[in-house]
Amino acid sequence: MIDDILRANQAHAKDFAANDAPSRPTKQLVVLTCMDARLRPEEFLGLSLGSAHILRNAGAVVTDDVLRSLVLSTRLMGTKQVLVIGHTNCALEGVDEVELGERTRAGELQFHVFDDLEGHVQAQVQCIESSKLLPDEINVRGFVYQVEDGLLRQVV
Amino acid sequence: MIDDILRANQAHAKDFAANDAPSRPTKQLVVLTCMDARLRPEEFLGLSLGSAHILRNAGAVVTDDVLRSLVLSTRLMGTKQVLVIGHTNCALEGVDEVELGERTRAGELQFHVFDDLEGHVQAQVQCIESSKLLPDEINVRGFVYQVEDGLLRQVV
Repeated sequence: MIDDILRANQAHAKDFAANDAPSRPTKQLVVLTCMDARLRPEEFLGLSLGSAHILRNAGAVVTDDVLRSLVLSTRLMGTKQVLVIGHTNCALEGVDEVELGERTRAGELQFHVFDDLEGHVQAQVQCIESSKLLPDEINVRGFVYQVEDGLLRQVV
Repeated sequence: MIDDILRANQAHAKDFAANDAPSRPTKQLVVLTCMDARLRPEEFLGLSLGSAHILRNAGAVVTDDVLRSLVLSTRLMGTKQVLVIGHTNCALEGVDEVELGERTRAGELQFHVFDDLEGHVQAQVQCIESSKLLPDEINVRGFVYQVEDGLLRQVV
């Protein structure tokens, strides 16, 4: 597996021509989405290399770690637009925290399950908007990505 | 900006043909890397849609949130191989926590800065390997991605 990946990477590096991309996101954009294997945010948002910071965790949840990353992104690297992108068929939708704790043998964790996908995205947007750590002037929008047809639907 | 993104997404959805990708990562792989705009892990690892969970935060740091996501990935979704990928020219390398706290007006946060990139990647690998929350049988490897030439370098 590691050998396959290193071979694929060597092929990638052969055609590599992006060594002058700046470290600050050129679109002043930061995206928070899920770790799900069916999501390729740069592709479904049409973003070229160097355009945006991409944050990903289970469920596109605004955790303390996401706030830490958003502080660095907005205050240090100049991003002004935040997109929160949940998705259909998420493993955290419609499940029970207690049952999930049993199935993963990690009952002490809070997994941030949810029942209503749009409501979940809205809550994450509000969490960013109300954070005292982030600049007032950032713009935050929420979307759902549909894994069935590749379309984005704006929620807020 | 939002209009541009929605237009780009509609173009993406027109060619979309991946509506049967399974939700479990087909390569049983989960990748942790940085939010940096110059990193496109699926591309530089040669991963097709549906292959791997992708976790991204500032610095590819193993935080509590990353452990939560790794528990779900390994115990619920069957991943067995973890790659931790730091990168050259990271904004958290060679800076000072206190100065960063002042510059971001968020001195109460721990940003997880580091001086030695290889040592940082090694420490994150060890953090995953020693976590009691994760299965014993997972395999964890650490890499550095070079933003200058697109190559991966194995650290551990």
